[in-house]
Amino acid sequence: MLLTHATLATMSPAAGSGDYGLIRDGAVVIEADRIAWVGPMADLPADHRGLPHLDCGGRLVTPGLIDCHTHAVFAGHRAEEFELRLNGASYEAIARAGGGIMATVTATRAASEDTLLSGALARIDQLTASGATTVEVKSGYGMTVGDELKMLRVARQIDRHRAVTVRTSHLAAHAVPPEFKDNAKAYITEVALPSLRAAHAEGLVDAVDAFCETIAFSVDELAPLFAEARALGLPVKLHAEQLSDRGGAAFAAGHGALSADHLEYLSPEGIAAMAQAGTVAVILPGAFYTLRETRTPPIGALRAAGVPMAVATDLNPGSSPMASLTLAMNMACTLFRLTPLEALAGTTLHAASALGLSDRGRIAPRQRADLCIWDAHHPAELSYRIGATPLHKRIYGGQLDA
Amino acid sequence: MLLTHATLATMSPAAGSGDYGLIRDGAVVIEADRIAWVGPMADLPADHRGLPHLDCGGRLVTPGLIDCHTHAVFAGHRAEEFELRLNGASYEAIARAGGGIMATVTATRAASEDTLLSGALARIDQLTASGATTVEVKSGYGMTVGDELKMLRVARQIDRHRAVTVRTSHLAAHAVPPEFKDNAKAYITEVALPSLRAAHAEGLVDAVDAFCETIAFSVDELAPLFAEARALGLPVKLHAEQLSDRGGAAFAAGHGALSADHLEYLSPEGIAAMAQAGTVAVILPGAFYTLRETRTPPIGALRAAGVPMAVATDLNPGSSPMASLTLAMNMACTLFRLTPLEALAGTTLHAASALGLSDRGRIAPRQRADLCIWDAHHPAELSYRIGATPLHKRIYGGQLDA
Ligand SMILES: [Zn+2]
Ligand SMILES: [Zn+2]
Repeated sequence: MLLTHATLATMSPAAGSGDYGLIRDGAVVIEADRIAWVGPMADLPADHRGLPHLDCGGRLVTPGLIDCHTHAVFAGHRAEEFELRLNGASYEAIARAGGGIMATVTATRAASEDTLLSGALARIDQLTASGATTVEVKSGYGMTVGDELKMLRVARQIDRHRAVTVRTSHLAAHAVPPEFKDNAKAYITEVALPSLRAAHAEGLVDAVDAFCETIAFSVDELAPLFAEARALGLPVKLHAEQLSDRGGAAFAAGHGALSADHLEYLSPEGIAAMAQAGTVAVILPGAFYTLRETRTPPIGALRAAGVPMAVATDLNPGSSPMASLTLAMNMACTLFRLTPLEALAGTTLHAASALGLSDRGRIAPRQRADLCIWDAHHPAELSYRIGATPLHKRIYGGQLDA
Repeated sequence: MLLTHATLATMSPAAGSGDYGLIRDGAVVIEADRIAWVGPMADLPADHRGLPHLDCGGRLVTPGLIDCHTHAVFAGHRAEEFELRLNGASYEAIARAGGGIMATVTATRAASEDTLLSGALARIDQLTASGATTVEVKSGYGMTVGDELKMLRVARQIDRHRAVTVRTSHLAAHAVPPEFKDNAKAYITEVALPSLRAAHAEGLVDAVDAFCETIAFSVDELAPLFAEARALGLPVKLHAEQLSDRGGAAFAAGHGALSADHLEYLSPEGIAAMAQAGTVAVILPGAFYTLRETRTPPIGALRAAGVPMAVATDLNPGSSPMASLTLAMNMACTLFRLTPLEALAGTTLHAASALGLSDRGRIAPRQRADLCIWDAHHPAELSYRIGATPLHKRIYGGQLDA
């Protein structure tokens, strides 16, 4: 297939002008599921000119977007809780009434794989409608060995039903369930570690994740989990410094983490450790927005230190019921002052790095042919618009969506 | 047509339980473009049972949403300006470079009616995809007699091309263009008043609007315009107290205004005047969010005073490039602490009042059959979700969208 007359944001500065790697009136040659050639129309080699072609009419074409942090598998929703809170109920009152994360855990434990899958597919459809071609999906609402495995099995089924790549993260260490109250250590030993081993044995785990926070786990409690990940040859990532500085980012970077995520309370030491380890900073404005946080991640310091920044939805039923990558990009710009270039790099090349993937995230030869064609002409439009995604067509693995 | 097995949020407390007027397992009988009957399935009169029916499968059905404040007709976009600002350019530098509202005015003056219409239709499509069945559209980027008329003529053409009701507002007094610098009074006399008279003579005006602000017009400058509106028998509304307290809301209420819009700096006197006049408070969280304002409208005081609150997108290329009513509802809840009930009332019955319409905004006999069927079961879900609209099907004037 041949895309013609496209405004290409290749995200490869070498390929085109400026940091977007912009090519005006560009062409892309796709062979099977890979990009074979990219460049200006005028330079298109003669032997490609006869291919069946799709005229983009000057439209913007970007790499397929990558959502590198979601909790897209869960049961139930928490709209009533959202309403209770706005009618004045405290977080404590909601938790006492069985709300909060444990409401999702209870519903997820009770749900069948089929129920979980149909809910996840509906959310994946929303993400792909906003341009996603690769989505990370975490476990973490099971909190028993069996239920963590169930979630990951569901995540593994998604790509059989939808044109999307799913990368899984094992997140048993998400919160300490009531049955392990005040005994996080026992939860790690009795649930997190055995579920990780079992899930890995089934081939269900692409990375290991955890939540490092006062209300979750300390770095000391997480050390055995990350050691086990290393023993199994699995990369790690971490929810770190969202609500307080617990040294999570430096701990994760010390384990060569792919990413540290949230980072509102990230310290200079954490930034330095991430820069040294090449750990990606995953910025999650949806949770910041929903929780009405006021402290923003240290974007300027991350930028100055050369830490790559990714942007993701954090799609989850509690703190970020957001299923649009372009809205995440807008919020990253509006709330955190990322530039539109950083926001697009954050959902393409740096999001790929956050998942340990080097075969996607740019428009370049040998990359996967995952592309978005937009009803837009300038890449900044993707971050500028709020709440309506200008996706025109999506190409996944060389195939145009029906 | 007959809708069956719906979860109806009638927004008529008399019709069902609670303030949503909720009817579980409800039915709606539609005759031509009107609602003929609404109630529980069990009470459905026998003579309606044979109608062709649409089984809602328990899905939530609400009145069609109403966006009572948009600037959906304009040319150009301001994504590059958004990017410049995030790269550190000041508002002043952008204005000096021809950016800001005058960029939109220049592009709109240069655009043909056809160009303006096709852009407006694309935006209307995004709004209807978020559930809108009625949309208010303002002029205000022409700022000459001819260009204001051009914008309103375009707005009047929208309903010939799309299944949506458009209500127009004449907004010549939107800003003082450079050719009238420091002479707002002359602009009112030479452009606003003649364009209003000409537009009214052509049947293009449903209401008269203006922007009362330090950077726009004072109440004294606007008095002749509102007097003319009264003389022509046209209702008024006002952009008021967005960036400072200029007494706009009380001025508008004194003219029996349908609505006063924005209201971040609304005073107790303004609230009292609005309550007395029955003026609707139109809440516009998209502009607050985009401009990173910190002062929120006095929601608690408006609530206490019984002022009806509407919620709208303020869709415009500068301060609110937002084309989703459900996202406006989420932002009204998240940023301004409206309840999900207030947010839904704000895009249904109170939005209808803000447009002077009494034939829509509720599910009740004799109301227009403008309805939304949602992939949701609880009305709070519409405000809870961020960035993906769970619209299943839309019914406009008794006709299901194709
Ligand atoms: Zn998360
Ligand atoms: Zn406005």
